[in-house]
Amino acid sequence: MAKIAFIGLGVMGYPMAGHLAAAGHETTVYNRTGAKAEAWKNEHGGHTAPTPREAAEGADVVFSCVGNDDDVRSVVFGDDGVLAGMRTGATLVDHTTASAELARELSAGAGEKGIAFLDAPVSGGQAGAEKGILTVMVGGEQVRFDAVRPVMAAYGRTITLMGPVGSGQLAKMMNQICIAGLVQGLAEAIAFGQNAGLDIGTVIGAISKGAAGSWQMENRHETMSAGRYDFGFAVEWMRKDLGICLAEAKRNGSSLPVTALIDQFYGEVEAMGGKRWDTSSLLARLKR
Amino acid sequence: MAKIAFIGLGVMGYPMAGHLAAAGHETTVYNRTGAKAEAWKNEHGGHTAPTPREAAEGADVVFSCVGNDDDVRSVVFGDDGVLAGMRTGATLVDHTTASAELARELSAGAGEKGIAFLDAPVSGGQAGAEKGILTVMVGGEQVRFDAVRPVMAAYGRTITLMGPVGSGQLAKMMNQICIAGLVQGLAEAIAFGQNAGLDIGTVIGAISKGAAGSWQMENRHETMSAGRYDFGFAVEWMRKDLGICLAEAKRNGSSLPVTALIDQFYGEVEAMGGKRWDTSSLLARLKR
Repeated sequence: MAKIAFIGLGVMGYPMAGHLAAAGHETTVYNRTGAKAEAWKNEHGGHTAPTPREAAEGADVVFSCVGNDDDVRSVVFGDDGVLAGMRTGATLVDHTTASAELARELSAGAGEKGIAFLDAPVSGGQAGAEKGILTVMVGGEQVRFDAVRPVMAAYGRTITLMGPVGSGQLAKMMNQICIAGLVQGLAEAIAFGQNAGLDIGTVIGAISKGAAGSWQMENRHETMSAGRYDFGFAVEWMRKDLGICLAEAKRNGSSLPVTALIDQFYGEVEAMGGKRWDTSSLLARLKR
Repeated sequence: MAKIAFIGLGVMGYPMAGHLAAAGHETTVYNRTGAKAEAWKNEHGGHTAPTPREAAEGADVVFSCVGNDDDVRSVVFGDDGVLAGMRTGATLVDHTTASAELARELSAGAGEKGIAFLDAPVSGGQAGAEKGILTVMVGGEQVRFDAVRPVMAAYGRTITLMGPVGSGQLAKMMNQICIAGLVQGLAEAIAFGQNAGLDIGTVIGAISKGAAGSWQMENRHETMSAGRYDFGFAVEWMRKDLGICLAEAKRNGSSLPVTALIDQFYGEVEAMGGKRWDTSSLLARLKR
């Protein structure tokens, strides 16, 4: 069993750190809002620490799962950041969905101190984190991946090394780009079908196994048909991720015309009061 | 067993009519190019007729599967059309992907002669037609649907009544609208991933069971990654279908912004020489 630090107890991090503790790892947590760390300790045992640095002291592996690039920087760098506390030879794993540039920046900063780094964004949402069946997309060196993979198995079902540092983030970007176009197509189809007087469930039942079929169709058509969006992966998080995709596309010379358009559509959904609505709420702006 | 006429022996109609003959139905075929009808008769037995009218004489069920709205009109109406030959009480089933308006026009024309009508576009492509596992989306009356369904089972695996006349076409439009947005999202993701230096197969292997997953991802990512489009559902057919979707959306007040944009993108693919390329060739215009 390993000595672990986990930084960031949000909707993803809280259950992920819980799975690590349940698997028998000695786990110390840090969270910006201390009360949540105390709640976690009461539920799962383990330890809390007042700063990321103190959480990271003596750890074999330090995990971070926070909000955005700047949030990651604030818990990794500086006098109270994890790099100030980590020992040489330990590994830092960032589960935050962030830019590939940040991953390379973290890897360089860690490398200066003899610390290894893996970028490892996840997909599967809150439900996947709670059930411990996340998909983990990893960038970094094979030998470090092999060493940390058994630890991540506490909450990951599919754990894949995608290539060098940054590749985990780039793979997650591919995931989000696919979802954007796909959900918009599904939303246009459902709005069209409702305007045409079709029974959406009957149509989806017939077409969902064929060329139009998707996870989103299977898992979202009922809530979309009912206009329910009070759950799932929030629009404001999706916009953060699409912003990362669009910035990276600009760097690597990719054209993402529909992804860019859908980022704008999500902006309209936010203006409708939908910041916290599920990603499938693209349908809402078609039904105004 | 029923007495059948089948009008239109294209890539879909040829094998569909073959399955009807193989199931034991007495099948008479008509095709604009007579040589194809002769080839079909040599392969499957049955009969050929020199006009749609003569093929339809005495039939219990007449199927049509031709190109577009005007092609359907030309084999249904007029002195040599099937309605001139069909007996009262028979059923006309149109498998062409066409407009819902045409379905209502055909139903009215058939009704005047005491002939029932079902619109019944299919999905599953040439492979689905050859294997006899098509999805059939039907509009019309329940009693006629129930009567003809066992005949269509010769080539259909999922056969669903979607509602009154026109509903089969409207359901097929939902299918095509879903595909348009979905394939573009997948194409943007693959182009992005290639520009980022990712191994596309590795990424897709990790994400294909999750929220980004789709039939298109599972079945097209390898050919898309390789830039192979010489198979499948052709761009020019997709544009015909999207044209039908956009016209119907204008009538029923639906907004299809991404579907409309992707119709334009397919126009660019056509201009690149891709009229006959598979629908997944949206990737080609991102890689110029």
